[in-house]
Amino acid sequence: MATWSNLDTLASYQELTKAARVNLAEVMSGEKGADRVKNYSIPMAEGLVYNYASKQVDDQLLSALAKLAEEAQLSEKFEALYNGEVVNTGEKRLVLHHMTRGQLGQAVEADGVDKRSFYVEQQQRIADFANKVHSGEITNAAGEKFTTVVQIGIGGSDLGPRAMYLALENWAKKNGLFKMEAKFISNVDPDDAAAVLASTDVAHAVFVLVSKSGTTLETLTNESFVKDALKNAGLDPAKHMIAVTSETSPLAKSDDYLAAFYMDDYIGGRFSTTSAVGGAVLSLAFGPDVFAQFLEGAAAEDQLAAKKDVMENPAMLDALIGVYERNVLGYPATAVLPYSQALSRFPAHLQQLDMESNGKSVNRFGEPVNYPTGPVIFGEPGTNGQHSFYQLLHQGTDIVPLQFIGFKNNQMGTDVVIQDSTSQQKLCANVAAQIVAFACGKSDDDRNKNFEGGRPSSIIIGEEVNPKTLGALLAHFENKVMFQGFLWNVNSFDQEGVQLGKVLAKRVLAHETDGALKVYSDLLNI
Amino acid sequence: MATWSNLDTLASYQELTKAARVNLAEVMSGEKGADRVKNYSIPMAEGLVYNYASKQVDDQLLSALAKLAEEAQLSEKFEALYNGEVVNTGEKRLVLHHMTRGQLGQAVEADGVDKRSFYVEQQQRIADFANKVHSGEITNAAGEKFTTVVQIGIGGSDLGPRAMYLALENWAKKNGLFKMEAKFISNVDPDDAAAVLASTDVAHAVFVLVSKSGTTLETLTNESFVKDALKNAGLDPAKHMIAVTSETSPLAKSDDYLAAFYMDDYIGGRFSTTSAVGGAVLSLAFGPDVFAQFLEGAAAEDQLAAKKDVMENPAMLDALIGVYERNVLGYPATAVLPYSQALSRFPAHLQQLDMESNGKSVNRFGEPVNYPTGPVIFGEPGTNGQHSFYQLLHQGTDIVPLQFIGFKNNQMGTDVVIQDSTSQQKLCANVAAQIVAFACGKSDDDRNKNFEGGRPSSIIIGEEVNPKTLGALLAHFENKVMFQGFLWNVNSFDQEGVQLGKVLAKRVLAHETDGALKVYSDLLNI
Repeated sequence: MATWSNLDTLASYQELTKAARVNLAEVMSGEKGADRVKNYSIPMAEGLVYNYASKQVDDQLLSALAKLAEEAQLSEKFEALYNGEVVNTGEKRLVLHHMTRGQLGQAVEADGVDKRSFYVEQQQRIADFANKVHSGEITNAAGEKFTTVVQIGIGGSDLGPRAMYLALENWAKKNGLFKMEAKFISNVDPDDAAAVLASTDVAHAVFVLVSKSGTTLETLTNESFVKDALKNAGLDPAKHMIAVTSETSPLAKSDDYLAAFYMDDYIGGRFSTTSAVGGAVLSLAFGPDVFAQFLEGAAAEDQLAAKKDVMENPAMLDALIGVYERNVLGYPATAVLPYSQALSRFPAHLQQLDMESNGKSVNRFGEPVNYPTGPVIFGEPGTNGQHSFYQLLHQGTDIVPLQFIGFKNNQMGTDVVIQDSTSQQKLCANVAAQIVAFACGKSDDDRNKNFEGGRPSSIIIGEEVNPKTLGALLAHFENKVMFQGFLWNVNSFDQEGVQLGKVLAKRVLAHETDGALKVYSDLLNI
Repeated sequence: MATWSNLDTLASYQELTKAARVNLAEVMSGEKGADRVKNYSIPMAEGLVYNYASKQVDDQLLSALAKLAEEAQLSEKFEALYNGEVVNTGEKRLVLHHMTRGQLGQAVEADGVDKRSFYVEQQQRIADFANKVHSGEITNAAGEKFTTVVQIGIGGSDLGPRAMYLALENWAKKNGLFKMEAKFISNVDPDDAAAVLASTDVAHAVFVLVSKSGTTLETLTNESFVKDALKNAGLDPAKHMIAVTSETSPLAKSDDYLAAFYMDDYIGGRFSTTSAVGGAVLSLAFGPDVFAQFLEGAAAEDQLAAKKDVMENPAMLDALIGVYERNVLGYPATAVLPYSQALSRFPAHLQQLDMESNGKSVNRFGEPVNYPTGPVIFGEPGTNGQHSFYQLLHQGTDIVPLQFIGFKNNQMGTDVVIQDSTSQQKLCANVAAQIVAFACGKSDDDRNKNFEGGRPSSIIIGEEVNPKTLGALLAHFENKVMFQGFLWNVNSFDQEGVQLGKVLAKRVLAHETDGALKVYSDLLNI
């Protein structure tokens, strides 16, 4: 049995706080810098590599981190999780998102069924449905093929699937695997649904309603919006909608849907991209085989996360370095910077994944912790970010650790040579240059043009963004966040912090307010 | 003449650090909370209101902030700026973006011309061009109307114009003012241009190349990309492209463009949305009248920023409170949270505006400062963010000040009633509820469900997102950032921090690297 202890009670953490600081600008200079880049690297799945040469670590610090990993029992805790222990203690639930893409340990039974079989069954049902939509066996009432899929969901039912769709859209088009355009409706702002519907041929659209509980206010509201639009077009909503929900929700087994696919309580929204939540829309958009490859990549990365040796476990090392930066070095935020337009919304997904999981002030036993937990996460694709907020990253008063992601090849294969290099080469040259600029800086007598350096980053490098590498990338970050939650001793799998706002919003709508809330409501004309 | 001093040398700042802290949860409770919401409010232009009731201030603290404003000579400095002093000392340039929308003080001459007249002339030339495109007087070579405008630019030539386009797109459609669809190419990743071009009917597209210097690598590269696509379609690029550039750039007066519109060195990219940089694409998309209204809103807000009384100057007060939060209370980040899908990319623009302007470690004289300057800025539209990162905002270990924006009405006028309220009401109820939840919290014996409260926010409330309110909103933040730069005594108008990365990237492309940079380049296959 693993022992769940606060970070600051661990002897190895106390040791870590006393370890000598690494002068990044110095260790990254000259030939020893070159050696670091060659050596400080761990293979990931699907040909990806996690390179941490530009992090503020050295061999001594790495061994301190390895001790911390051991004392914090990171491997044992992950093992407990994938073997079906109730790791989500607050909600008293298993945590089974890994099982949507493989089985790392023993069989896990819950709700009277083998969970791996349950997830595979849902994938097969989705695959069958998607294939029938693509072949024209399932059509609209007029017998015409569906051409568009519209996901209605918010938070984890939106950000992950949307980011993955955008990541693979052009790859699928290029490789002849693009089946249907996908769109997304999330915000309760009526302009969101109205704008999507205005640009959608609803007669040929299938809508995927995603809500585990079947009670998410935004999602049910947007469903009504969509149903109105379908009815106004003389269409039967029940012939245009499918549901992704839990088997016990009001949406399950309802005649209002062409089909329902199931998720369960053991997968939190932000970890649900590899479940039916991502499965339905991505299988419809790109075909079930592409979704299966995506799961394969994630499963392969999970295998690495299960390795006990931290130097073979990129997610674990990434997590440890992040905690060192947050708790020992005191850096309050982390930027995620993919040098790939395909990953334009990947940072927005990671923002939820990380901040909702580890933005907690109490440990898993409900006791306040005395140390910082999850940082602020933000990011935009490079090179765009270079022309936006990198000024602060290079010369601001706070140090922001950086997570770069880069690929050797672009997706669409179209390129142009300007000044003797392709755009892809320019893109890659920029990310290489940024890492070194951040780490080493450059002194200048004009202090305004001086770069201190010492700004840490890591980079994940891959061949191209495709279903497998994308799955591996997603799993890497899911596992990193999980390991950090273990280190901080928080429950990464609940989100009680979102409840109060919901309660108060209901009160406003019921006009049961007083004090400040009433005046704000008046100002907003509610 | 204004005196430019470091924040920590000001007596009023030292006083501010000693001022009693406000217990936000306490002052926002009960009837005194209601009174605060009624009173702690400043009218903005175009019917907007800046409400700061949920900030950690009280009358005493406000008077301390007013003293700081006076000692820091915020009004005098703004006056100096709009009267044409060389406030961008690093680059030895005037700072004239306000003059694109009005003239707050005396006439300013530079480069031998009256600058207000110069900007107005460019607007008129753009209006004339756009009107001719809309009327069909300017067409493609086949005499057919242009239907799409594609902006090619990055950073300030992309984020601001793109955010404004998205903010007004549905409003324009609803109000019959939508002229042409706009698209944007920014990233040097070739997949960006390739994807935009693949979905664009290039034969009926006019491309706006935006680069002040005419040398921005990403932009010139993407221009070639576009030219190739035009040539491959048998079209003459010179009949499909216009340039927005400085009069001295290689793009000016070139036969490669249908027309060129001018900007100058006195407007930084991130402040250029109201110049020809935003003017061309927005006038083409929505017509010159809409762009003129946008400028009108910005000009009206600028008038308020010129007011000497901080209690009548929302941008100045917003700036002062932000500096108090950053420097005295020690909060490292700020979230921008518009409850409007139309403003989905407004936070991304503010991220550049703020972080590139004030992410500096040296003062305007090139001396290191001893205090934090610009914070990390991030945000997503509500209610989406509620289902993403709000967990951390409510219950994380760091306090993140929040900037809410809300509107009483949506843009498209379509809505649906579910559970007795419209989506618009739900949207507004949520923002009201969040402010109070953050400020007041709610205690619970289950610490996991406990909300500390004391998390500060402000809100800007308006009737709807339209050209005038959008212009006012943009100007508010531009002016806030400017005032904060004055307080931190940094030069908000240069960006030397982006240079080193460019230099190193060139070196990589020329294969003139060694050490770490060479190994990274090899890993990325350059």
